[in-house]
Amino acid sequence: MQRTVRELIKHKGMNFVPTVQFGESVQTALEKLDYYDSGVLLVMKMGRIIGIFSERDFARAAIDFDGRNILKSRVESIMGQNVIFVTDDYRLDECMAVMSSNKIRHLPVLQDGHPIALLSMRHIMEALIEDKEFLIDELTKYVMGERYAVYRQERTPLQLLTSGQ
Amino acid sequence: MQRTVRELIKHKGMNFVPTVQFGESVQTALEKLDYYDSGVLLVMKMGRIIGIFSERDFARAAIDFDGRNILKSRVESIMGQNVIFVTDDYRLDECMAVMSSNKIRHLPVLQDGHPIALLSMRHIMEALIEDKEFLIDELTKYVMGERYAVYRQERTPLQLLTSGQ
Repeated sequence: MQRTVRELIKHKGMNFVPTVQFGESVQTALEKLDYYDSGVLLVMKMGRIIGIFSERDFARAAIDFDGRNILKSRVESIMGQNVIFVTDDYRLDECMAVMSSNKIRHLPVLQDGHPIALLSMRHIMEALIEDKEFLIDELTKYVMGERYAVYRQERTPLQLLTSGQ
Repeated sequence: MQRTVRELIKHKGMNFVPTVQFGESVQTALEKLDYYDSGVLLVMKMGRIIGIFSERDFARAAIDFDGRNILKSRVESIMGQNVIFVTDDYRLDECMAVMSSNKIRHLPVLQDGHPIALLSMRHIMEALIEDKEFLIDELTKYVMGERYAVYRQERTPLQLLTSGQ
């Protein structure tokens, strides 16, 4: 019943990963967040993930920057270095559990060390809601079918009795 | 079946609203976001909402600030002025529809013009998932009950026949 990350990515065509390169400025990272309409970027170095940069990281880091120019800083001075990720065989409820227990809202999907998708908590929750709605539909159809079957069972002997008398 | 905002707020005790006052600095707003562990603040003036300030607003506004010191700016120069809200009689699916159609992720709940809660898309989705899981449980119990009833119906005549012979 539960879909995997692989099925979700394929179904939704979520194979784009917004990134910024090690050494690029915070200014560039912010422009990329805006351009990609994203809340987070993976920070890459030689094709490998070395961190994750979010709007939240920026908003928190800016507090301590005071007069200095945060926009000219390099993205790796602000990014989160502890990157929690999943592989594409994870089920959606497992992804939710990983995000909840690590208090994160974005989850990179890695294959052979390379990012193939970047899922948000919203993506996962939307998909979970879809899955549950599908199950509710199926159960409702089943229940209605059972009722119909019971209804027919009750009516059939009554008709037979009536015609028999 | 569908819960309302009122029931969600009561059930989860979500009656805290993070705010910042008109005239306060962006620096203060960022410190409040950090302190409240929130992604958004309502901007208040004389007890009334005049805007909403988010991490995203800050990340987008910072792009155009360049050398100037964004942290000393007043929060109302960056805040979003178009505040979409609901009242506490809205159903959760209606809240989702409001958020999706307006492309927003936070929804203030107003009563007589005053904010009584600030819901995030995550709050709403978590509650929707809970509601659907409850419905799935109920339907499953019903289906299992029906099956049990059918099973008993089939077994009872068989036993009677056996004992009758």
